Amino acid sequence: MSEAKAILPVRIYWEDTDAGGIVYHSNYLKFMERARTELLRSLFHCSQTELARQENILFVAVSVNLQWKRSAYLDDELMVHTSIKQLKMASMVFDQKIYRGDTLITTAEVRVAVVQKDTMTPTAMPESLHNAFAQWLQAPHEPSNA
Amino acid sequence: MSEAKAILPVRIYWEDTDAGGIVYHSNYLKFMERARTELLRSLFHCSQTELARQENILFVAVSVNLQWKRSAYLDDELMVHTSIKQLKMASMVFDQKIYRGDTLITTAEVRVAVVQKDTMTPTAMPESLHNAFAQWLQAPHEPSNA
Amino acid sequence: MSEAKAILPVRIYWEDTDAGGIVYHSNYLKFMERARTELLRSLFHCSQTELARQENILFVAVSVNLQWKRSAYLDDELMVHTSIKQLKMASMVFDQKIYRGDTLITTAEVRVAVVQKDTMTPTAMPESLHNAFAQWLQAPHEPSNA
Amino acid sequence: MSEAKAILPVRIYWEDTDAGGIVYHSNYLKFMERARTELLRSLFHCSQTELARQENILFVAVSVNLQWKRSAYLDDELMVHTSIKQLKMASMVFDQKIYRGDTLITTAEVRVAVVQKDTMTPTAMPESLHNAFAQWLQAPHEPSNA
Repeated sequence: MSEAKAILPVRIYWEDTDAGGIVYHSNYLKFMERARTELLRSLFHCSQTELARQENILFVAVSVNLQWKRSAYLDDELMVHTSIKQLKMASMVFDQKIYRGDTLITTAEVRVAVVQKDTMTPTAMPESLHNAFAQWLQAPHEPSNA
Repeated sequence: MSEAKAILPVRIYWEDTDAGGIVYHSNYLKFMERARTELLRSLFHCSQTELARQENILFVAVSVNLQWKRSAYLDDELMVHTSIKQLKMASMVFDQKIYRGDTLITTAEVRVAVVQKDTMTPTAMPESLHNAFAQWLQAPHEPSNA
Repeated sequence: MSEAKAILPVRIYWEDTDAGGIVYHSNYLKFMERARTELLRSLFHCSQTELARQENILFVAVSVNLQWKRSAYLDDELMVHTSIKQLKMASMVFDQKIYRGDTLITTAEVRVAVVQKDTMTPTAMPESLHNAFAQWLQAPHEPSNA
Repeated sequence: MSEAKAILPVRIYWEDTDAGGIVYHSNYLKFMERARTELLRSLFHCSQTELARQENILFVAVSVNLQWKRSAYLDDELMVHTSIKQLKMASMVFDQKIYRGDTLITTAEVRVAVVQKDTMTPTAMPESLHNAFAQWLQAPHEPSNA
């Protein structure tokens, strides 16, 4: 059995780099969020804009444990690998790894909480959304070839 | 008589630069907006957050005519010079120049409109705000030495 | 005859937006640069990293005349339309328009110069690169459907 | 005895926020880097640009363990508190906390390594720089009042 994993390609542009000639360190968090956003979109056929409007919920990052292993550079095409390490009603832990080919660039564990949009207080995600994540986790997956 | 002008210092950090070793081109628009924000704060003793809550208005950029003249670099301390070229009830034109010492780095004419926050439609700014700008424009000013 | 035009889709993520609920104004310049970068990559089969290393040249933005017409929002999929208004050996003028569906969001004329990477002084682009652009401009083009 | 601690104020502008109405999560890493940069500048009377040129070294972030505790908002004035948890010749661990008044917004432990600029391989920092940090750590400090 292989692990459920989503892969998002990310191209590095000038805007992503710094004067050290490498990708600016905090931008990897942006790439990881893009990947979580696209996973949500693909599983739930729903944008976060719609979730906010219809369900009054937002996903907010609560903590991250991140290691910058290697540098990435202008024009690189990186692959953001996203899997779910823990799924609860009111929070999730994502395991996210960014590769250039076989080279691991950055790895992170990101904890995300569900909050009510208007009060920013913790809440449960809609049952249907939890089910969509749970189904994806249980489905048999082919090994992914980035 | 000298022209009314506000000056905001901006330090260049890694986040502002790109792999060409220079400040990334679009970031000058950020620096110019910081300067307009601080001018508003100093003249009106009021933040844009308060303006949005109390008066339901936002300032939005409508157009810019910008020239990048020279490069700026990591650790530079730039000075953003801001003056008002045109003041109307529902829009303003700012003349903004960014210097490193005597060297002109970037110059721009930025048109900003006042909109209602909830509908994003054009509206007039509060009389008191217009007066604050007008008074500043008419007050005698000492030549500024950045 | 239709005009040579390249179209790049850009998805709007949280990172692109601001507390006004819309895309932050300077980010459109990033999207436009991504589009110029991809046009160069597709025409010349060469990255800017390679151009910098092999030819010692960089493209730098010299001026922009930009109008923000409408707001864009989280989750929007925008299309950046790029055409070349003027092609010289040492500079180019790009005409760039960003749409959401049929709605024009932002339009800009961006002048870009070719400089030597180590001295940042103006220079001519390689003949082969100029030819690649010129051929693209002269080739018959199908109307594009974004 | 009180702990050596540097405090940098950071104003929140539109550029720092997102459509959730709060500071975009990855931007706290930028604020923390600004604070490390200013600590280095104040202790060593030297910019990172000069360190790179004269000593061929760069500081690069290696890992971070970060918690987002509370949201920050447009117009907030945050205080970035920076102390040094571990000082070695080739690496440092910074303890960084961001406050709005007494409210803890974000806390992080950031590991930074010293690398040779041209090869990006680990190296020792100059003795004089290590001494500057060590002296600061050993000097008696007044309690700081942010």
